Amino acid sequence: MGALDRLFRPRAVALVGASRERYAIGGAILHNLIRAGFRGQIFPVNPRAGVLHGLTCYPSVDALPAPVDLAIIAVPRPAVIATLRACGRAHIGAAVLITAGYRETGPEGRGLEDELLQVARTCGIRLVGPNCMGIMNMADDVRLQASFSASLPTTGTIAFASQSGAVGEAMLALLHERGLGVSMFVSLGNKADVSSNDLLAEWGDDSATRVILLYMESFGHPQKFLDVAARVTRHTPVIAVKAGRSAAGARAAASHTGALAGSDSAVDALLAQSGVIRADTVEECLIYASALATQPLPAGPRVVVVTNAGGPAILATDTAMACGLQMASLSDETTAALRALLPAEASVRNPIDMIASAQAPQYEAVVRLVAADPGVDALIVMFTALETNQPTPVADAIIAATRGLAKPVLACFMGTMTDGSGVTRLREAGLPVYTFGEDAARALSVMVRYQTARQRPVDPPAPLPEGDWAAITALCDTLTRQQRRQMTLADAQRVLEWAGIPVWPWREVASVDEVPAALTGLRLPAVAKISSAVIVHKSDVGGVLLGLHSPEAVSAAVVALLERARRVDPAATVVLQEQAPAGVEIIAGAVRDGRFGPLVMCGLGGVFVEVFKDVSLGVHPLRRSDIQAMLRRLRAFPLLDGARGRPKADLAALEDILRRLEALMVACPAIAEVDINPLIAAPVGSLTAAADARVTLAADGA
Amino acid sequence: MGALDRLFRPRAVALVGASRERYAIGGAILHNLIRAGFRGQIFPVNPRAGVLHGLTCYPSVDALPAPVDLAIIAVPRPAVIATLRACGRAHIGAAVLITAGYRETGPEGRGLEDELLQVARTCGIRLVGPNCMGIMNMADDVRLQASFSASLPTTGTIAFASQSGAVGEAMLALLHERGLGVSMFVSLGNKADVSSNDLLAEWGDDSATRVILLYMESFGHPQKFLDVAARVTRHTPVIAVKAGRSAAGARAAASHTGALAGSDSAVDALLAQSGVIRADTVEECLIYASALATQPLPAGPRVVVVTNAGGPAILATDTAMACGLQMASLSDETTAALRALLPAEASVRNPIDMIASAQAPQYEAVVRLVAADPGVDALIVMFTALETNQPTPVADAIIAATRGLAKPVLACFMGTMTDGSGVTRLREAGLPVYTFGEDAARALSVMVRYQTARQRPVDPPAPLPEGDWAAITALCDTLTRQQRRQMTLADAQRVLEWAGIPVWPWREVASVDEVPAALTGLRLPAVAKISSAVIVHKSDVGGVLLGLHSPEAVSAAVVALLERARRVDPAATVVLQEQAPAGVEIIAGAVRDGRFGPLVMCGLGGVFVEVFKDVSLGVHPLRRSDIQAMLRRLRAFPLLDGARGRPKADLAALEDILRRLEALMVACPAIAEVDINPLIAAPVGSLTAAADARVTLAADGA
Repeated sequence: MGALDRLFRPRAVALVGASRERYAIGGAILHNLIRAGFRGQIFPVNPRAGVLHGLTCYPSVDALPAPVDLAIIAVPRPAVIATLRACGRAHIGAAVLITAGYRETGPEGRGLEDELLQVARTCGIRLVGPNCMGIMNMADDVRLQASFSASLPTTGTIAFASQSGAVGEAMLALLHERGLGVSMFVSLGNKADVSSNDLLAEWGDDSATRVILLYMESFGHPQKFLDVAARVTRHTPVIAVKAGRSAAGARAAASHTGALAGSDSAVDALLAQSGVIRADTVEECLIYASALATQPLPAGPRVVVVTNAGGPAILATDTAMACGLQMASLSDETTAALRALLPAEASVRNPIDMIASAQAPQYEAVVRLVAADPGVDALIVMFTALETNQPTPVADAIIAATRGLAKPVLACFMGTMTDGSGVTRLREAGLPVYTFGEDAARALSVMVRYQTARQRPVDPPAPLPEGDWAAITALCDTLTRQQRRQMTLADAQRVLEWAGIPVWPWREVASVDEVPAALTGLRLPAVAKISSAVIVHKSDVGGVLLGLHSPEAVSAAVVALLERARRVDPAATVVLQEQAPAGVEIIAGAVRDGRFGPLVMCGLGGVFVEVFKDVSLGVHPLRRSDIQAMLRRLRAFPLLDGARGRPKADLAALEDILRRLEALMVACPAIAEVDINPLIAAPVGSLTAAADARVTLAADGA
Repeated sequence: MGALDRLFRPRAVALVGASRERYAIGGAILHNLIRAGFRGQIFPVNPRAGVLHGLTCYPSVDALPAPVDLAIIAVPRPAVIATLRACGRAHIGAAVLITAGYRETGPEGRGLEDELLQVARTCGIRLVGPNCMGIMNMADDVRLQASFSASLPTTGTIAFASQSGAVGEAMLALLHERGLGVSMFVSLGNKADVSSNDLLAEWGDDSATRVILLYMESFGHPQKFLDVAARVTRHTPVIAVKAGRSAAGARAAASHTGALAGSDSAVDALLAQSGVIRADTVEECLIYASALATQPLPAGPRVVVVTNAGGPAILATDTAMACGLQMASLSDETTAALRALLPAEASVRNPIDMIASAQAPQYEAVVRLVAADPGVDALIVMFTALETNQPTPVADAIIAATRGLAKPVLACFMGTMTDGSGVTRLREAGLPVYTFGEDAARALSVMVRYQTARQRPVDPPAPLPEGDWAAITALCDTLTRQQRRQMTLADAQRVLEWAGIPVWPWREVASVDEVPAALTGLRLPAVAKISSAVIVHKSDVGGVLLGLHSPEAVSAAVVALLERARRVDPAATVVLQEQAPAGVEIIAGAVRDGRFGPLVMCGLGGVFVEVFKDVSLGVHPLRRSDIQAMLRRLRAFPLLDGARGRPKADLAALEDILRRLEALMVACPAIAEVDINPLIAAPVGSLTAAADARVTLAADGA
């Protein structure tokens, strides 16, 4: 049996806190267990009831007459621990804890939750909840609806885990409305034990599940999520709605589940590296799921649109182009066949407008023709109901023409349906039906992107590059003992060099006397910069002097800067550095996030990072392909890639620097943050190097 | 009577081409006229029928027994002209021409359409169509459903014009589904005579109409649209779905209606200047219309979210923040009252989560409280149906608590509704009901933006600035005679100066001998640039030499450039120009669009215009406020507005240059395009001026 088999495929279930009251929680769950037709035994447990719904009721878990795999616990909070212990004695391997009043209520509840988790572990019980709505497994040989949801999903291919009961309930209702069936559902609640990560692993191996949906408000273990999700998404698409994109949303999420929501950009990076499809809204999630749960993936982005009305097809085409699909070019043979088939007023160029006179035979013939065209990867078939046509025969024609086709087909039916069965038949035949062509186009573009992500190279994390971590750790220890959080510029640049990151040629001088010796190794013009652990924003205090073309100018600058700096920081020195040529300025850096661990960042430098927010993040551990994707996610990437006749930047050098930033954060936990601004991105053969740096230590000197 | 009264409020209607066949077009229209309960007389016209649906049928228009205001014409194309002439003789003032086979079919059809328009004009007939579905006026004293649409809308406040019959049909079905009523509907067809502009003007004055929806594939007269729409949107919101955003979409639009779709950026500019709300999809249009048709506009962006479940509220909050709304801060009194009212587990911070135990009384009390808080501009009230609550009493509570409220209220009901009447009651009470909080938040943000746009200052176009148009025209004439399309750099810079646009200090030299004289007025360092009508991309051929610090360097550069240039263009000269300081580089320009007329453009210069596509357009005539909005629409605007301690650019000088570009295009029709790249944007007190220019003449020398 798999790790969660006793949870999802129990042979017998005990409902502890079963109730006669239909609208009490313990009554609603009993009602659901019965009406769904659970294939195993149901043992209601309630000390005050003899028989419930014709089932013998047992006064306690200890009194159960037979082995039980799963307990659904809906007793008052004070009775929970004793119930769990009883479950342990009864060798019940899994429990769903409905009861609320734990971590979501504050510190006291958090303590109680820790305690019950401890008890569950001791008793060998895998636990869903607390503070959840329950679980479902709609497989025909299980039929477990062990929740107080009002839904009874049809059996299908979508597995869904929700961190919010209400979003879960809303989504189940919408899936049902759109004719989409469910394989399994879990209301995660506080995720004390069983988490989305466990479910991803379980459902990734479930043959009944074609798509996994997640509604998440927080990540418990981002790195584990990355590991599991990256594996699962190679064969099963995962769509996540992650709440808390906005600051206010994140605050609401925090007060809702007591979970600390991670930075949204880190979430984006994590989902991208995992190959997970992020949906911005529940509706988007449904739009994508309808297609992914029913259709094969397209081999490419070339879509054909077939319609009986021009306007809706134009809107679909607009959206298709905007989200990166291509309008398929039909072969001359297909075009000629279409021409022969359709009236003169019809348009045989994609989108194919068969005009309003099109009836079922035209739909069947045209869809068959374009489906067979090797230049077509996917079909959007649109139908507008008019007074002069009938939806049901058209639906049947589309079903007949696409049966067994290895390309995705998405249908759009709009207008006042003179009979309601057309849409139903399409759905029963396993075709997704949208009202708007725009939605079909968006779903298809997500399928194309998923197909690409799915085929990404298997690229295990390479060993992190080596550096002189001992030297860096020794420096960090010294500074931590001195309760310093900020490194001087010179120390920061030394740290980069120890980590193997090239720094633009530089020397440190503590007095003007040292200038001549320093200049022997540097080419003029130079820049002089204050190096101080106290003066953090050196530019703001005139601490940077540019364009020093002669040794005399350099000496004068050093005198001036030392004079200025030492009023504030007697230990200040000056860094002399060759002036970097104008070029593409990049910023790169790394930060240690409390939840996500080391994050690596890069972006276009200068003021543009603030105006255009054009940065991209990566979450440790980064594969080589992740780093390449990070660079390519930058909207400014064309500037690095030789846009407008510019020289191509040395991308391998940039990738190496990002890898080394990651290695530095992993090897030296005392470092909280590294900023390289600017990083000079030069063409291959020239020096790509940091031209300024800042390193911050962790407050606790971790 | 208004201009279109005989169309929309006819006392008698003739249906020419009436048919006994229920599913023929002439039969479907007759059926609709009758079932809608048209208040006036209906005269079917058909030479082969005696009585249709109990109505006496007349053999011809000439045989009509009484005065008729409106003819619906559904006869074969060859009979159309004669029918129109008969309508003229019968003093029928308006006609809806259903018949197709005109402009949409090619040159021959276009000729026929021109002819029938001529006939209609001669006969004094206002014409809708040809190639359309018909019109509706659902006012209780009219009840005109003169179309072959399958819809019979309820009477309401939404007026809707569609350039596509199918999109019209789909939208009418969706409006009905969401309980939204219609005042008038027009299927525009080929727009030979009556256009969206006419309808905007008509509907803007219609007291029954609260919102106007447009589905457009092309603009007939963009400037007239701007004029009319800018007036109407001051009191009535207009939402437009403009198809053809993508290139392929535009191609489909062109083949669909034979209309040339304008450049999409110009469409964006036109709609922005008109105060029209652009919806990207039909669904977005519905989302916005539901709220605008029923709710008062919010005084500001501060929204409160009331919910019985955390998850959905978080998603709504995320969207609200992302689209520019603010989460209202509740007063201490409101917060205290909420605290007293709600259980301890509830969250009284916005979003207000009353938790799952909330029933109708809590909804009523909480909604009343927050609605009365002066810090709240708008309410989103969310309800998730659970096993333990009932939608209908909650709906009634929301209705009671918000009756007569002068703030917008948007409801979101989700989950499996145990009874269906809650949503219906809300809609009957005039509240928009969404499934997703995200949609409610988007609708609200559009209301806030419309409220701002509506209150924009009344700012008549100022007279265009003066320039030496005679000099420019003379130069253009000369060049046109020489069949030149490209001006030299020197000519282009002279044109700018004649138009009153400052140019960075410069001199033109034709030989090295002229350098000393030229340098008397210029400060070094200088730049030397080839000025030639032949060498267009001078940078690409080494035609620009920078950093000339001495007169000798300048002379050497002039010699080199002349030598290089005259191999190709014996008339080439050199422009010497002071080297502009580093600063914010802008591009500005103007182009004459075949359909939109003069378009003015500005954007962030350098490579960033290509990478970030950060440009904004304006359509002539531009109000001062439009030009200010153009600059503010740039994502890079903060760079001009003093971001990161930069000096604020001289915005008045930039506005003046854009105004003068507009004036130049209006005054000199021979100019096809002007490009200023770069335009140096300096702080107030310093010179804001063009540092390079290109002027292209119209191919036809227009």
